[in-house]
Amino acid sequence: MYYLGIDLGGTNIATAVVNEQYEIMGRGKLKTRCPRPADEIADDIAAACRMALEEAGLSLLDVEGVGAGIPGTVNKATGIIEYSNNLGFDQVPLQKMLEERLGCGKVYLENDANAAAYGELLAGAGKGCENMIAITLGTGVGSGIIVDGKIISGVNFAGGELGHTVIVKDGVLCTCGRRGCWESYASATGLIRLTKEAMEAHPDSKMWELAGSLDQVNGRTAFDAMRAGDPVGTQVAHDYMDYVACGLVNCINIFQPDIICIGGGISKEGETLLAPIRKYVEAERYSKHSAVQTQLKTAVLGNDAGIIGAAFLKKLYD
Amino acid sequence: MYYLGIDLGGTNIATAVVNEQYEIMGRGKLKTRCPRPADEIADDIAAACRMALEEAGLSLLDVEGVGAGIPGTVNKATGIIEYSNNLGFDQVPLQKMLEERLGCGKVYLENDANAAAYGELLAGAGKGCENMIAITLGTGVGSGIIVDGKIISGVNFAGGELGHTVIVKDGVLCTCGRRGCWESYASATGLIRLTKEAMEAHPDSKMWELAGSLDQVNGRTAFDAMRAGDPVGTQVAHDYMDYVACGLVNCINIFQPDIICIGGGISKEGETLLAPIRKYVEAERYSKHSAVQTQLKTAVLGNDAGIIGAAFLKKLYD
Repeated sequence: MYYLGIDLGGTNIATAVVNEQYEIMGRGKLKTRCPRPADEIADDIAAACRMALEEAGLSLLDVEGVGAGIPGTVNKATGIIEYSNNLGFDQVPLQKMLEERLGCGKVYLENDANAAAYGELLAGAGKGCENMIAITLGTGVGSGIIVDGKIISGVNFAGGELGHTVIVKDGVLCTCGRRGCWESYASATGLIRLTKEAMEAHPDSKMWELAGSLDQVNGRTAFDAMRAGDPVGTQVAHDYMDYVACGLVNCINIFQPDIICIGGGISKEGETLLAPIRKYVEAERYSKHSAVQTQLKTAVLGNDAGIIGAAFLKKLYD
Repeated sequence: MYYLGIDLGGTNIATAVVNEQYEIMGRGKLKTRCPRPADEIADDIAAACRMALEEAGLSLLDVEGVGAGIPGTVNKATGIIEYSNNLGFDQVPLQKMLEERLGCGKVYLENDANAAAYGELLAGAGKGCENMIAITLGTGVGSGIIVDGKIISGVNFAGGELGHTVIVKDGVLCTCGRRGCWESYASATGLIRLTKEAMEAHPDSKMWELAGSLDQVNGRTAFDAMRAGDPVGTQVAHDYMDYVACGLVNCINIFQPDIICIGGGISKEGETLLAPIRKYVEAERYSKHSAVQTQLKTAVLGNDAGIIGAAFLKKLYD
């Protein structure tokens, strides 16, 4: 049998048909073009699903489960998207809307970061594990928490927001309104801020040459400068990794999962990022006396994690 | 039927026989007198169990389940206490030792903070809930996390340590070796440090009169000064509540539980503590758009939470 996954983003609607070996058999893609009425977006989600089925040479009769990852608060009891800043959704009954359009029985919905974490658990870095945290170091710090094979999202489905835990009390203002959230320091946005601040303080840093100008600074600038032997860039990269590691140890001290899987743009640094973080983690974790310790790994599925996780959401309820 | 609960502390071994309505039918108590060999401590645990049974007029034949809360890392798969700083235990097979001494079938072990959280869930502030975090504001900040009726302790049983998450990066040195842990600010120890610092900076504060001397400062000094209208004491109490609330919002943003139950010495302040914390939490939690919100309550069972939770541990595995 086959599974149909939907990744609804602020920019794109991406869909895929996935087989039981987690291989993608066909894909669909349309622009989300929001803000626009949820009805129209639902129409295009259904159209993108049919595109993926057509590419795979299959029909809905071959599909065992359909699921979607949504950037927002998904009430899994009612199938209503309670709120999505990215999509401009407020109390949208998306489950029912998709079920009507697809005519294929229950459509399972989940927050997109949670769906991506579940995808990495099933088919990626967490294969064979039951306890995993997936952290995405992108524009923000996304997170999905899986305990005993189940997604943690709390009684109101708004939980799992590790990025919005304060690690620097009274620190930098976060998009969520708090000050000093992990996200404000460990995201690519946070790294870019640290990089710019260091460049302004050090007009002689090689980072000026590498980036060209402050406006062109990105998440690689400081790491590239470190590789080029620039002491200021090296300091920025290490300060950044310190912030990432601080939050990771917090996660470990709470959950002690089998693995923490790190994805998002910055995770492309691979061992350049993970090796110093592992040292910090080993020195600071509370579980110094335990034989079993959390492993740190990079995510392996990239953007497909969300689609694969969404496709198999039904398995969480079987 | 009846259940037998054991609360093994660094100072006392406390036991109780509990009925199915969570009423205590008989108690036993002996000094732990550690450090001494684990064999001797196990002998006294068994003796304290027999004391409780005798007071209740019951025998082990009336007991459906036996459980113990232990201050340390309890490997629930092996029944071995992997490490306990308080007891001086290192790889002690306590489950087997107690089963041999009591001759009553399986003895269930759990970390003491987790057992206390489970007790509050079953019979106290969390009655009727499935998702609860219990926070103890005492010498340290203890925590027990319950999701869908199960205790979260991670793959190595060392998890659930919300007190050892950093909220002030590079802050005050914690007993765990990290800097800036929530425990270092939100514990009674943290409050006493804040109080002393403020007294030294303000020789005119009413806190000098209330405490007598720096050595006599306790967790009530700042709150008493606030009630007496002392501006310095008021500032200390509010700074302290800010630290408590910061960590509580972190907990909410991760878990979004039904309730957070706050126990320990400082929780005796009741609404003096909880009312300002609720305001902070309402302003900062990520779940602003959710109809369902985490409730903050004080713990109700006091020291009996650990014994009652331990007594019913068997129910977690049935």
